[in-house]
Amino acid sequence: MEIEVVRLGHRMVRDYRVSTHVCLVARALGARRIWIEGHVDQTVQKSVGAIQTEWGGEFEIQFVLGMRKKVLEMKRSGFCIVHLTMYGTPLPDAENDLRQKEKIAILIGSQKVPAEYYRLADYNISVSQQPQSEIGALAITLDHLQEGRELAAGQRQVNAKKSVEATARGKKLRRSGVL
Amino acid sequence: MEIEVVRLGHRMVRDYRVSTHVCLVARALGARRIWIEGHVDQTVQKSVGAIQTEWGGEFEIQFVLGMRKKVLEMKRSGFCIVHLTMYGTPLPDAENDLRQKEKIAILIGSQKVPAEYYRLADYNISVSQQPQSEIGALAITLDHLQEGRELAAGQRQVNAKKSVEATARGKKLRRSGVL
Repeated sequence: MEIEVVRLGHRMVRDYRVSTHVCLVARALGARRIWIEGHVDQTVQKSVGAIQTEWGGEFEIQFVLGMRKKVLEMKRSGFCIVHLTMYGTPLPDAENDLRQKEKIAILIGSQKVPAEYYRLADYNISVSQQPQSEIGALAITLDHLQEGRELAAGQRQVNAKKSVEATARGKKLRRSGVL
Repeated sequence: MEIEVVRLGHRMVRDYRVSTHVCLVARALGARRIWIEGHVDQTVQKSVGAIQTEWGGEFEIQFVLGMRKKVLEMKRSGFCIVHLTMYGTPLPDAENDLRQKEKIAILIGSQKVPAEYYRLADYNISVSQQPQSEIGALAITLDHLQEGRELAAGQRQVNAKKSVEATARGKKLRRSGVL
């Protein structure tokens, strides 16, 4: 399954930390790319880029003006559009269907999401029917779609200088694949 | 199972939004209380309080100076201390054990977590072995510990003025339990 994330309504400065958390979740849990709505925000690029340099992976960040057009284009090219909203179908009721898809784009908002995205989405999905963090909702959705595979021991991204060796206490690192 | 969250190293102003996301995740996914290290931050209290007024629930926020002492006290009173860190035991390898516990305190850091918490914890747990958002890690841990129960349809908190009726498109609300 190919997963991309679409972050709507990123605001420069104000959203730097929250959007960086979104990127970390997307990268750590197997999305291959994030599309962020807005002008290029170098603070986000640098924070995530620094992690990528050390911990590897091929995760990509792209900034886009005019996200509606981009999402329609993704839909035409075969992506199943999954919009996360507390008002949608509970994730457990839809996840078996979603796991059959080859390409999924997960849309998350920041503030209010324009109504058109509710219509444009193939699925509107809720992760708890309560006001929720889009970071938390994304994490749980990625985990469920991949049935926890991204959480298993031995996760290491390609071209990593460092990776973790699991330990009950403290910190153990592998460098360039060697202990 | 009784779950509380411990947020280490909250910094006034700088951490307002991230800590608010942490609170939203904790509340939406069934934790009954969060302990936040630092002076009382009214911006967090107000944001979460406003949600609570509308959407109900008995979630509590407590600010604490000297968190180490608090955590030791929780440990003595029977809480299993679970510290989330990318270096720990992968969540899937520990979750069956954790589900047997009656009381769990989930510790999450902001910046660097002092080494003593790695020793003090009963479990150091990783949610992906990659640099990760503590918000995302908390969300997945709460979901796994409760085996997805908090995500099911029909979730409504006590004393809610509003609750959601799941819908494939748009937004449907119930007010005071009545459509």
